[in-house]
Amino acid sequence: MTSSKLSKIELVKNDEQIDDLQINGEVIIQRKIGFRYGVDAVLLANFVRIKNKNSTLIDLGTGNGIIPMIISAKSDIEKIYGLEIQEDIADMAIRTVKLNNLEDRIKIINMDLRESINSFEKESFDLVTSNPPYMPVEKLEPENISQKIARTEITLNLEELFKTVNYLLKSKGKFFMIHRPSRLGEIFCKSKKYNLEPKRVVMVYPKLYKAPNIVLIEFMKDGREEIRFYPALYIHSENGGYTEDIKKIYRSKKLRDNFFDR
Amino acid sequence: MTSSKLSKIELVKNDEQIDDLQINGEVIIQRKIGFRYGVDAVLLANFVRIKNKNSTLIDLGTGNGIIPMIISAKSDIEKIYGLEIQEDIADMAIRTVKLNNLEDRIKIINMDLRESINSFEKESFDLVTSNPPYMPVEKLEPENISQKIARTEITLNLEELFKTVNYLLKSKGKFFMIHRPSRLGEIFCKSKKYNLEPKRVVMVYPKLYKAPNIVLIEFMKDGREEIRFYPALYIHSENGGYTEDIKKIYRSKKLRDNFFDR
Repeated sequence: MTSSKLSKIELVKNDEQIDDLQINGEVIIQRKIGFRYGVDAVLLANFVRIKNKNSTLIDLGTGNGIIPMIISAKSDIEKIYGLEIQEDIADMAIRTVKLNNLEDRIKIINMDLRESINSFEKESFDLVTSNPPYMPVEKLEPENISQKIARTEITLNLEELFKTVNYLLKSKGKFFMIHRPSRLGEIFCKSKKYNLEPKRVVMVYPKLYKAPNIVLIEFMKDGREEIRFYPALYIHSENGGYTEDIKKIYRSKKLRDNFFDR
Repeated sequence: MTSSKLSKIELVKNDEQIDDLQINGEVIIQRKIGFRYGVDAVLLANFVRIKNKNSTLIDLGTGNGIIPMIISAKSDIEKIYGLEIQEDIADMAIRTVKLNNLEDRIKIINMDLRESINSFEKESFDLVTSNPPYMPVEKLEPENISQKIARTEITLNLEELFKTVNYLLKSKGKFFMIHRPSRLGEIFCKSKKYNLEPKRVVMVYPKLYKAPNIVLIEFMKDGREEIRFYPALYIHSENGGYTEDIKKIYRSKKLRDNFFDR
């Protein structure tokens, strides 16, 4: 950690810690227990393709800001917005942005993404990302309310998400999402209703001979109806550690170098 | 070949040959060049689950009857219908059924499946199978008209297929289909329109690090919205031969013993 970052140590609360993102010297504030990012966020951020540094990007449900942080570190994109409904989590993301002196590139807003219709111009973004709650309301009961909002569809369901993305995205713009394979029927069907056509899909398997538990999807607004599936991506190798593919994704310096373009 | 089968050799035409199915001594008539079954048909037939020998099953677009033949050999189901639009191909399937003395169990009908609405009672089947044409009309141009009808959607598109399946299938009945992953968006969305809910899905990859080129889907009519994905199924191993999984599927004696139940 550089001394300029040490001087900002007051940005971190007692129940939080600073973790090294291991890219460009960036760090991220996380709860010691509870709200922490996982491999899902890393996969989604690395799945994004940015062709132009002037592209406008917004991350819906940004949590502690992990997606904007990784994308800012691995691309030259100049402006990233992140919306987070939970005030304390959004505050954590805002402090992370300050800690990394990224205020010019990343703007975190404490906002229900359904309110973005009132705050942003229609079709003003080239790129949208989201790691939304995975579970229908009736399914999972996490222990605390903060995790509950992040993981179950209490404050956001798929239909509302696609409706918002349709509003924010330009025609031919891209939407990058990560979700559960079990909900792929609903995802493919509801996205089409909002002119979001699935174009690239990666099925992610925890290891060989196991069922997939993650799916990465790139949609194009007003795209043609045809999906390109990618080779199966495995998280863990036979011996339990990360596969070479996953290590390569973590280590990559640029989004364009990542696994998915091989 | 048994002598009773040899005595029926006149059932086979000059441009055809008899191939051993290697299950229960069954044989199948195929063209020497052109219309022959592939691994797709074997996968689909072995994907079917039959819980009751009194279940009624219909195969839509049965070709040379490979799906009914495998299912009859690997289950005790008593009655299987197969519809085939092409007269000469249906005739080949009918002769295969005779050659195997299976006239009591398998009934092949030369019929456009869209006409089945006029020939069968509504909701009269427990199980439906189909290996439909994969390609939208504009895409592939196979050399002869027989392959063209089997492979492109000249005489049948997805919407017409789902509409027919909805008509034929009882509530909670199962529809087993094989198709291309590139069309999964359209498949998941159009099937829902006809109350066919995708329940079990297997992504089939030609080999490790290759994109999937086949998908097996089990739908339930009036089912609940949740998909169970299976582990990735690989066709070929690193050295080019079939994987152990594929060998096991070919060799299995009963549908219930097959790979997909592991």
